[in-house]
Amino acid sequence: MFRTFSTIILGSPLWLLPLSAWAQMAAADLNPPEPQIPAHVAGKLSPQDRELFGKLMRVELESVWAAVNAEGYPNCFINELTALKPHERMVGRARTIRYLPNRKDLRAKLYAASPQLNYKSSEEAQPGDVLVFEAGGETRSAVTGNVTATRLMVRGGVGMVADGAFRDVPMLEAMPLQIYMRRGQAAGVSPIQMSVDYQVPVRIGGVTVIPGDILFGERHGILVIPAEIVEKVVEQALATVEREEFQRHLLLQGESLYDIYPKLSEANRKRYEEYKKRKQ
Amino acid sequence: MFRTFSTIILGSPLWLLPLSAWAQMAAADLNPPEPQIPAHVAGKLSPQDRELFGKLMRVELESVWAAVNAEGYPNCFINELTALKPHERMVGRARTIRYLPNRKDLRAKLYAASPQLNYKSSEEAQPGDVLVFEAGGETRSAVTGNVTATRLMVRGGVGMVADGAFRDVPMLEAMPLQIYMRRGQAAGVSPIQMSVDYQVPVRIGGVTVIPGDILFGERHGILVIPAEIVEKVVEQALATVEREEFQRHLLLQGESLYDIYPKLSEANRKRYEEYKKRKQ
Amino acid sequence: MFRTFSTIILGSPLWLLPLSAWAQMAAADLNPPEPQIPAHVAGKLSPQDRELFGKLMRVELESVWAAVNAEGYPNCFINELTALKPHERMVGRARTIRYLPNRKDLRAKLYAASPQLNYKSSEEAQPGDVLVFEAGGETRSAVTGNVTATRLMVRGGVGMVADGAFRDVPMLEAMPLQIYMRRGQAAGVSPIQMSVDYQVPVRIGGVTVIPGDILFGERHGILVIPAEIVEKVVEQALATVEREEFQRHLLLQGESLYDIYPKLSEANRKRYEEYKKRKQ
Amino acid sequence: MFRTFSTIILGSPLWLLPLSAWAQMAAADLNPPEPQIPAHVAGKLSPQDRELFGKLMRVELESVWAAVNAEGYPNCFINELTALKPHERMVGRARTIRYLPNRKDLRAKLYAASPQLNYKSSEEAQPGDVLVFEAGGETRSAVTGNVTATRLMVRGGVGMVADGAFRDVPMLEAMPLQIYMRRGQAAGVSPIQMSVDYQVPVRIGGVTVIPGDILFGERHGILVIPAEIVEKVVEQALATVEREEFQRHLLLQGESLYDIYPKLSEANRKRYEEYKKRKQ
Amino acid sequence: MFRTFSTIILGSPLWLLPLSAWAQMAAADLNPPEPQIPAHVAGKLSPQDRELFGKLMRVELESVWAAVNAEGYPNCFINELTALKPHERMVGRARTIRYLPNRKDLRAKLYAASPQLNYKSSEEAQPGDVLVFEAGGETRSAVTGNVTATRLMVRGGVGMVADGAFRDVPMLEAMPLQIYMRRGQAAGVSPIQMSVDYQVPVRIGGVTVIPGDILFGERHGILVIPAEIVEKVVEQALATVEREEFQRHLLLQGESLYDIYPKLSEANRKRYEEYKKRKQ
Amino acid sequence: MFRTFSTIILGSPLWLLPLSAWAQMAAADLNPPEPQIPAHVAGKLSPQDRELFGKLMRVELESVWAAVNAEGYPNCFINELTALKPHERMVGRARTIRYLPNRKDLRAKLYAASPQLNYKSSEEAQPGDVLVFEAGGETRSAVTGNVTATRLMVRGGVGMVADGAFRDVPMLEAMPLQIYMRRGQAAGVSPIQMSVDYQVPVRIGGVTVIPGDILFGERHGILVIPAEIVEKVVEQALATVEREEFQRHLLLQGESLYDIYPKLSEANRKRYEEYKKRKQ
Repeated sequence: MFRTFSTIILGSPLWLLPLSAWAQMAAADLNPPEPQIPAHVAGKLSPQDRELFGKLMRVELESVWAAVNAEGYPNCFINELTALKPHERMVGRARTIRYLPNRKDLRAKLYAASPQLNYKSSEEAQPGDVLVFEAGGETRSAVTGNVTATRLMVRGGVGMVADGAFRDVPMLEAMPLQIYMRRGQAAGVSPIQMSVDYQVPVRIGGVTVIPGDILFGERHGILVIPAEIVEKVVEQALATVEREEFQRHLLLQGESLYDIYPKLSEANRKRYEEYKKRKQ
Repeated sequence: MFRTFSTIILGSPLWLLPLSAWAQMAAADLNPPEPQIPAHVAGKLSPQDRELFGKLMRVELESVWAAVNAEGYPNCFINELTALKPHERMVGRARTIRYLPNRKDLRAKLYAASPQLNYKSSEEAQPGDVLVFEAGGETRSAVTGNVTATRLMVRGGVGMVADGAFRDVPMLEAMPLQIYMRRGQAAGVSPIQMSVDYQVPVRIGGVTVIPGDILFGERHGILVIPAEIVEKVVEQALATVEREEFQRHLLLQGESLYDIYPKLSEANRKRYEEYKKRKQ
Repeated sequence: MFRTFSTIILGSPLWLLPLSAWAQMAAADLNPPEPQIPAHVAGKLSPQDRELFGKLMRVELESVWAAVNAEGYPNCFINELTALKPHERMVGRARTIRYLPNRKDLRAKLYAASPQLNYKSSEEAQPGDVLVFEAGGETRSAVTGNVTATRLMVRGGVGMVADGAFRDVPMLEAMPLQIYMRRGQAAGVSPIQMSVDYQVPVRIGGVTVIPGDILFGERHGILVIPAEIVEKVVEQALATVEREEFQRHLLLQGESLYDIYPKLSEANRKRYEEYKKRKQ
Repeated sequence: MFRTFSTIILGSPLWLLPLSAWAQMAAADLNPPEPQIPAHVAGKLSPQDRELFGKLMRVELESVWAAVNAEGYPNCFINELTALKPHERMVGRARTIRYLPNRKDLRAKLYAASPQLNYKSSEEAQPGDVLVFEAGGETRSAVTGNVTATRLMVRGGVGMVADGAFRDVPMLEAMPLQIYMRRGQAAGVSPIQMSVDYQVPVRIGGVTVIPGDILFGERHGILVIPAEIVEKVVEQALATVEREEFQRHLLLQGESLYDIYPKLSEANRKRYEEYKKRKQ
Repeated sequence: MFRTFSTIILGSPLWLLPLSAWAQMAAADLNPPEPQIPAHVAGKLSPQDRELFGKLMRVELESVWAAVNAEGYPNCFINELTALKPHERMVGRARTIRYLPNRKDLRAKLYAASPQLNYKSSEEAQPGDVLVFEAGGETRSAVTGNVTATRLMVRGGVGMVADGAFRDVPMLEAMPLQIYMRRGQAAGVSPIQMSVDYQVPVRIGGVTVIPGDILFGERHGILVIPAEIVEKVVEQALATVEREEFQRHLLLQGESLYDIYPKLSEANRKRYEEYKKRKQ
Repeated sequence: MFRTFSTIILGSPLWLLPLSAWAQMAAADLNPPEPQIPAHVAGKLSPQDRELFGKLMRVELESVWAAVNAEGYPNCFINELTALKPHERMVGRARTIRYLPNRKDLRAKLYAASPQLNYKSSEEAQPGDVLVFEAGGETRSAVTGNVTATRLMVRGGVGMVADGAFRDVPMLEAMPLQIYMRRGQAAGVSPIQMSVDYQVPVRIGGVTVIPGDILFGERHGILVIPAEIVEKVVEQALATVEREEFQRHLLLQGESLYDIYPKLSEANRKRYEEYKKRKQ
């Protein structure tokens, strides 16, 4: 399988493959190691999730996007946030919290009835969960910070996403969690914001996220996959991997794009059938 | 009472008072007519609302703002939207609707259970209501248009506010409703957005609006008044009106600001006591 | 026919119809006067254009939008620009010019070969034309000003649209041309920009405009209608007018929205058939 | 003299001249009345200022811009603010105030030493002055409101400009002052901002304004004229008026732009000489 | 002491601690090495500054933020700029410069009287200084570049902050200085900007910075600490460190957040007392 | 030669030179290795290009900027895009493509006549080429992705620039191409955009790029060099290198900036002449 290499050799800065290495790998059908589910998560996942998350670690985001789009979800990619760890892939399940601008009366009522929802959500997080905070783009105040994140990590959580800001950013960077946000901030939740809703549909960077959605994050954004179609779209994406490997193989041999992409020419389709047989 | 004149003589374009007119009015204690509750609303309001709304027609927005702020609500003014009718004051009660980016699965479930919420909210609107649409700033699609507005008008509604866009803008302008929005748009709700929540707290231009809040709009924005404190803050604002009238009276006679504002000097406080007696 | 009234009584500021007037008109089937093709244009138009433009003066923008959208053009409404005359409807044909940031070498070559394209486009404008300037949102420099506009007016032009700025704004306001822009500016084209292409497809506020497109502008934006479908969509929009008139008629009598919109109930469809017969 | 008509007939909404009226005026060399210095200002101005301001009321902004630009000041037009009264021309002299985000220690020190600078600046304003507030684009808090404005008006002030927000907007609209701002706001200066500097150079909408600069405002922005060159540039602008009148005269007769603008052809230059003689 | 690890092992890319390492360290009370004052600075600092800066190297930014906020400075964190070296902590003292849009007359006067202020400020910089440039967000022109930075470095300077742009960005990155800016730029100061004020209060990313303020920068922004309270807030932050270490210790053992944060439960407070004794 | 070190030791994260190292290098006239033309490009370049590109690898961007600016091109630096590989210098030749918002009729016509232009441009790319995509800032849809990039790489291409978004970002990062963009995106070209023009002048981040321009990119942006002046400006930049080396040499010895920069004092000019002799 032929995939993104910079994500594999974790901790390595920009590793620029020389062209010869690409050609060599294409010739040798090298299978570089894949991104992995973080160790503190993998051990806690249910067998089903471990298999599902594992498959998502083996495909490219754009292949899954194509399948999700084809299912009737064209607006499923969040690209307005920054990934704190650009070389980490994130695969997890959305647990959502909604924030609003602070207001004394509503805040008093809500906080009398329940803990602040950043605390509650990390306390209740299940293995593989991603906390997702709707904050309306507010960055003058953080939605949460390192304590919540530590509890989330201990419970097997995968990451945190905010349409807003987090605090304690260097500590968040040191933890084995992926983080997406608009900016960092030192100021806490109060007195700018308050948490109001838990496990409701939320708006993140122009995309709706529903509790239970599967989130697939790369450095350029987060793909939101409705839970009901995730099995189907992962299978389709896995099927795409082999064809794209063949297409790159041809391109790296110097053949013309026109016969290869977006569709294989008739002649190349035959070569592809042979290629697949040879690999079996 | 000494107030904003441009809002009184409805339909008049920018009417610029010459200084002599100001001085003359100050001298004569002229009471120009006040902004009025629109006729199609006034007849339908409950007696309590007619009195409350009527008081709000007699005070300046900033006086009420000061009282709301003093009650512990510093973030209560929405100034990111445009008033379609800059010379119309709006006083009404919030009825809220929350929109999210469209998503096939959630939309199907919601629309099977209930009419679209723009229709529902206008159908259920009470006299004096303002429909308030959270749309996350989205202006590539309108939240609603003239049909909803017509039904709202017939039911005694006062206006519509969107953190987004309305369509049929020239028709909305022709109706006796005040409108606040980011931009206009020709495109309908679908396929960009969907309505998801009704009568929940919403985010409008960085301010939280709760169903039942009293909204007080001028050309520069909307003051959000929690229902529980509205009686109190209106009384305080009415008390402010008389003092400000006296302060302007002194200023128009050419006296120095320093003895008048923000606090009356000792000498001027005595004159004010006499002024109030004389007026009785 | 029942339409936007504020656009009819030109020069009138915000004319707020009392509800009784709406009901009265609905009852009486009043036909208020329609927006008119400006006199300096009407006399110069070809008979075909006079008929086409005249029809567009009799329908609502959203009705035409629906027909254009249904033809496969969902992204056809420009809502990022400001109309200088919010109560003027604009109907005209696009004549396009493309600007780029200034560059000495290209400018020298282009301006040696042809007059600046703002001059050329107004000189060559045909009756009913709208000059459309792609300027990439640049507002530190105007694309053109009153002299070009005067020549355009004399030739029977209808308006000017810029994804950028115009200068001489008070003079433009005084002329019988509609103007759409991001902002005004005093600075001329040079040394910030230059005109590079004439009568090519351009990008205006996120929408593609092609030379010959029909532009239909209201205060909230400009609908872009491909020339090939304009006859068809106008006919569809005219058919919509009558049904919407009936729908408003019912709403103004206080009937429930649910039986009227977006679709007439079975019972109301029958009443509509009778209504249409009665009107003939 | 042939000039902007919408600014003349004050209070008139969008008055759209029919082409025939333009041609008629051009033929008759009609001199429509000019914009006037407001009455409460004119009576207080020094004779020199009355003459200077009067001349600026007789020229187009772009003509003065050209002269200021030619003197070496290319960045002299502020177009990021909104004029509260789009049909009012503003001519006045800058009196500047600089605001910064609030900070307890500095605020305590400054306010112990001097009144807040919005009060001080209006108290010290001279006839013809414009208060100019640098606020860094901050609109969550107003820089000042109607009391300051009333004192400014009484002292013969002309207007107020803020790279930020004013409060009491409907009252400001009712006064004979021109106002430029980003948005309106109900919240006062504190606790968001504080005034820190008086009569220093400031940044307004990307342009530097120096105390004593002459400000020339139209609906699309404010031209900043260094005091030392104002006499010179006004004379140049007055000279431009006559030539542009002749150019429009030719254009309205239907002649080609190419022989008229930007430069008169040789033949037209001769006609211009005769035209000037005939007018004497 | 338990702190951010990514900042310690300088030059290391994203080093993601496995959960086991966190737990191990918590158990062993490991004290990883702290961020250090750069060598070219440390040797030149006064003993007092070396002690103060050294303490700030031992605490988390958010702990200091809490203490500064509690002293009455809620708006003290700049989060709109980008740190060129995200894994470098910056501790230094503000030396401020204010820029305005270029203007020929003022520039001539200022530059005749003094060197450009970017040169002057680096020439006069004291060990531990940070140059802070107010540029109003302007990024079409840099405020300064590598030569100024080299002189600053030689004099023991710590970094440079601009609400605007720097040039020579790769060279700045290679120097042992921290840099905060909006963007980089190749163009020099002139002809877009000019330096006008030195050692005055400035606006940076919505926060006021006063000469002599202590700046504490991390990858997510800069905390501005008034000089008069810095000793006090640092002591408070140091006291926070021990309690947070204990709180993380409990969390890493899997205990519930609710008994730990934001306040320790009664039972945990007792354990904390024992923990502190054990550590002594 | 004394230059940026972080760009040399590729793959190294932030390498912070201690001051002593700087001084040592200045004393020893160390010549650190320079950035290199990527291997897959160098072998394919014409001898002339290899020499030209090689020279550009030996100078600082700002030195070339100064020479381009002096030739009359002040607006030649693009700083609104993000470099995917901040430590990679890009030198190449522009091959341009223009995109517009999608439109069914035009798309059908264009795509019937020619392949999509992202395919065509990579298929026709020459060694040393950079694909440059005008997309008007649109980031809801990518202009192209990894397949195009692979073909470009095989043909000896150097990089891709979009005033918009690319997809397959981790794969692009793994390839030996430099990438500039606004954001990443998973969604493909259709149905948001379409390619319309090939090898025409385009607008990128406020700068005009013409086919054949030489692009010189660093982490902070891209310098656009007109092909006709590239030889001249490179020679000027090479001449600057030696003088700046001497200036840094003096600064690192602790001498005052005032005698060194921007101009050498008379005494230092004499030392410079000796320095140059000594080096020969």
